[in-house]
Amino acid sequence: MRGESYQIGDLAARFGAQLQGDAATLVNGVASIAAARQGDLVFASDEGRFQQALDSGASAIVTGRFANTARRDKPLLISDNPKLLFSRIAAQLCHEPAIEGHAESAQIHVTAKIGEHIFVGPGVVIEEGACIGDYTRIGANSVLGKNVRLGTHCRIDPNVTIYAGVKLGDRVIIQAGTVLGSTGFGYVRDEYDRHKLFPQIGGLLIEDDVEIGANCTVDRGSLDQTVIRRGAKLDNLVHVGHNVEIGENAIIAAQTGISGSSRIGPGAVIGGQVGIGEHAEVEGGTILGGQSGVLSGKILRGKGIVFWGTPARPLKDYLKELATLARLSRRGTK
Amino acid sequence: MRGESYQIGDLAARFGAQLQGDAATLVNGVASIAAARQGDLVFASDEGRFQQALDSGASAIVTGRFANTARRDKPLLISDNPKLLFSRIAAQLCHEPAIEGHAESAQIHVTAKIGEHIFVGPGVVIEEGACIGDYTRIGANSVLGKNVRLGTHCRIDPNVTIYAGVKLGDRVIIQAGTVLGSTGFGYVRDEYDRHKLFPQIGGLLIEDDVEIGANCTVDRGSLDQTVIRRGAKLDNLVHVGHNVEIGENAIIAAQTGISGSSRIGPGAVIGGQVGIGEHAEVEGGTILGGQSGVLSGKILRGKGIVFWGTPARPLKDYLKELATLARLSRRGTK
Amino acid sequence: MRGESYQIGDLAARFGAQLQGDAATLVNGVASIAAARQGDLVFASDEGRFQQALDSGASAIVTGRFANTARRDKPLLISDNPKLLFSRIAAQLCHEPAIEGHAESAQIHVTAKIGEHIFVGPGVVIEEGACIGDYTRIGANSVLGKNVRLGTHCRIDPNVTIYAGVKLGDRVIIQAGTVLGSTGFGYVRDEYDRHKLFPQIGGLLIEDDVEIGANCTVDRGSLDQTVIRRGAKLDNLVHVGHNVEIGENAIIAAQTGISGSSRIGPGAVIGGQVGIGEHAEVEGGTILGGQSGVLSGKILRGKGIVFWGTPARPLKDYLKELATLARLSRRGTK
Repeated sequence: MRGESYQIGDLAARFGAQLQGDAATLVNGVASIAAARQGDLVFASDEGRFQQALDSGASAIVTGRFANTARRDKPLLISDNPKLLFSRIAAQLCHEPAIEGHAESAQIHVTAKIGEHIFVGPGVVIEEGACIGDYTRIGANSVLGKNVRLGTHCRIDPNVTIYAGVKLGDRVIIQAGTVLGSTGFGYVRDEYDRHKLFPQIGGLLIEDDVEIGANCTVDRGSLDQTVIRRGAKLDNLVHVGHNVEIGENAIIAAQTGISGSSRIGPGAVIGGQVGIGEHAEVEGGTILGGQSGVLSGKILRGKGIVFWGTPARPLKDYLKELATLARLSRRGTK
Repeated sequence: MRGESYQIGDLAARFGAQLQGDAATLVNGVASIAAARQGDLVFASDEGRFQQALDSGASAIVTGRFANTARRDKPLLISDNPKLLFSRIAAQLCHEPAIEGHAESAQIHVTAKIGEHIFVGPGVVIEEGACIGDYTRIGANSVLGKNVRLGTHCRIDPNVTIYAGVKLGDRVIIQAGTVLGSTGFGYVRDEYDRHKLFPQIGGLLIEDDVEIGANCTVDRGSLDQTVIRRGAKLDNLVHVGHNVEIGENAIIAAQTGISGSSRIGPGAVIGGQVGIGEHAEVEGGTILGGQSGVLSGKILRGKGIVFWGTPARPLKDYLKELATLARLSRRGTK
Repeated sequence: MRGESYQIGDLAARFGAQLQGDAATLVNGVASIAAARQGDLVFASDEGRFQQALDSGASAIVTGRFANTARRDKPLLISDNPKLLFSRIAAQLCHEPAIEGHAESAQIHVTAKIGEHIFVGPGVVIEEGACIGDYTRIGANSVLGKNVRLGTHCRIDPNVTIYAGVKLGDRVIIQAGTVLGSTGFGYVRDEYDRHKLFPQIGGLLIEDDVEIGANCTVDRGSLDQTVIRRGAKLDNLVHVGHNVEIGENAIIAAQTGISGSSRIGPGAVIGGQVGIGEHAEVEGGTILGGQSGVLSGKILRGKGIVFWGTPARPLKDYLKELATLARLSRRGTK
């Protein structure tokens, strides 16, 4: 991905990095160290990679303070958090070109309110009363139900389904195949042991800067609403049940499932394939290892603590139990 | 969601509830207690919520026999199973308005047999020989392969794929992004360690009143057929392998996977993220806790018993083992 | 599925099977033993099924050397690997008829290079610079981004999304709803505890003969590329993170997730719902039981060995631990 060229000195100034070397060097893209060519900025996370970066085709290097900067073959951008610096500069160098326009085959209901500079791909369906903010892009064959509201600068990728009434803030990204606002899984058994749906007519609110991966499912509330707070990030194939609340800047890895009415606190870090039962609560800042399980109704208080296993317990307890079991098992066979 | 208005006395009579208070009170919707306004019927599951409901803006309350009915500010509908009563009345009050018609952009093969009063959304593709029953609705951009048969009053949401020859009964609901009749995962290793597909040409039969969530996958049979029996309910992101049979009124929570040729008995309750190996059997009425695992070939007999863990064992054994391990682990470090 | 008729003697010669009985017998399809009618070839995996097959309506039987061939009611095709033989003949008898053509509603960018004899279904979107090999079929409402490259004889089913720049080899099968080349889940925390995306601009390469199930997600690389090597097979709802490499002929069952930068060796067999942490490695030929977990950074060396549990350990150790725990738990309560 090659974009506009920037002088490395200007980037240092704009992003608050320490510059070492020729400020006039031009970069117009980022790459891995292995693939880097002229014009590329690369990221060296440690001294070994720094050496490789010096030997690569890159034009400049983002690195940390640990770098042995005796060799000065290439200009360096040095930062205490070089990964963050690199991410920010990459966003500048690689931003996708703005596109706008409505594909002829898109079906936009006459009552929908469409902002300016938006892109609506081929085959998109936008139903009655929907409202789309400026600069938002909607990928091909996505379907937006009645009265859906999208903020500005959102990116909805192809083949996404957004059910009626779902509300998204600004700068929300929804990747392909994801379903927002589906009917929750709440049934009541009748006198013949058949399952009758409890009403699932609540809303779904997704706040600003939320990013959701591909093929996720997020149910609407039953009577209240499901909420994903500002800045939360969800990986692929994540399931979020009805009435769930996911806190600000929580981060949830792939294939995790959160059952109905549970709450994930702000800044929680949830690994992949984690299962969280109904009406459970994970305190803000808690870290849950992959495949952990939190039982229904459980409140997990553990800001800054790593939990693991099912039922989730502090990592050190979990590891001790694993070691104990292995030891007893070996002894038992002697 | 506001619909037609009903007198509370008429609802009591129609649904067999005990009425207390003014039979002429009108309701035209349901809501949570927190959000209720005039015209809303609310559900109070316990005495605490009953008090809140009395203080809310709701026009009437569905509740159980435990309610302290000394205060009579609002009319009450009282039942031994108030949650079921509320679900039934809500279905009456909130039913989606009937829609019908064929979007101009839908592609319906000339040989397809389309019933009356059906709705076919924009971008829908219906292939050769497909057959759609009366009052069925097909959401935008869904694709129905050759000779698919849908009964009456089905609801297929957007972006669903139904492969050739799949058969659905009446009143089946398929939520967005779900795939029905995909090729099963059955391979035979050849002399070069490559994997050659075993034939996957069987059918998929989904009986009446089955409801399937969003982004699920249900494979067709290899030579025989995959069957989901009447009234079974599947949550989001559930996987059903080839030749599986899911019994009547079984209920399967999100992200559970059922491997090829396994059988789930009628009325089984399967938690989320459960994994069931190939050729396994879960007896009718068995309850499997979230993240449990049933090994390939295993027969789990446990009508009315809760199983947990991998391999799944009776909950009381599983809990005892957890406690034993924690105790030994603590002792081991003293 | 009835196709062209073949003489059983010709099939024996072409596929290297031993023929017993009338070489002139005609078959034109395969079926299960229960459903077989005249013209069907059936597969009898053991002596019990062989007896049933003799009593069935089938015209001929594929079976192993163990078969009691005293009764000769039907012609037999005998092989040391009858399941493989049956799979190969079935592929011959049941191959889907070739289709070609471009649906009028498909949107193919003028710069896209489209091969010969390809099929492009209704509602398909093919963007700028894409390149599609001969005999490839693209199912309805699938979306192929800019510069996507597909080899020859690929089959892309409906509602698939392939992001810009993804490359597929020849004879690749992608089932419905799958997403290829999505943005990986790599974030850097900023000074306000917000998550900033690390660049996810790498590629995705899927080699020849790879087959991927329905509703999977495969992320593009961050700076390097994600690679799925020749002949690998993925079941439904599998997640593959950024920079992952999956080896030749690896086989991965449903709902398994492979986190970023991990490597699965050639010929590995990964069960369902397995979770593999970041930067982990599973050696070629390793077998991982369902629901196992491999921790981040772990290297699992175990060609031909079965591993189970989380963290994954040799099956015999795992079983011994389960037995030990059950024993201690029972004793503890006496």
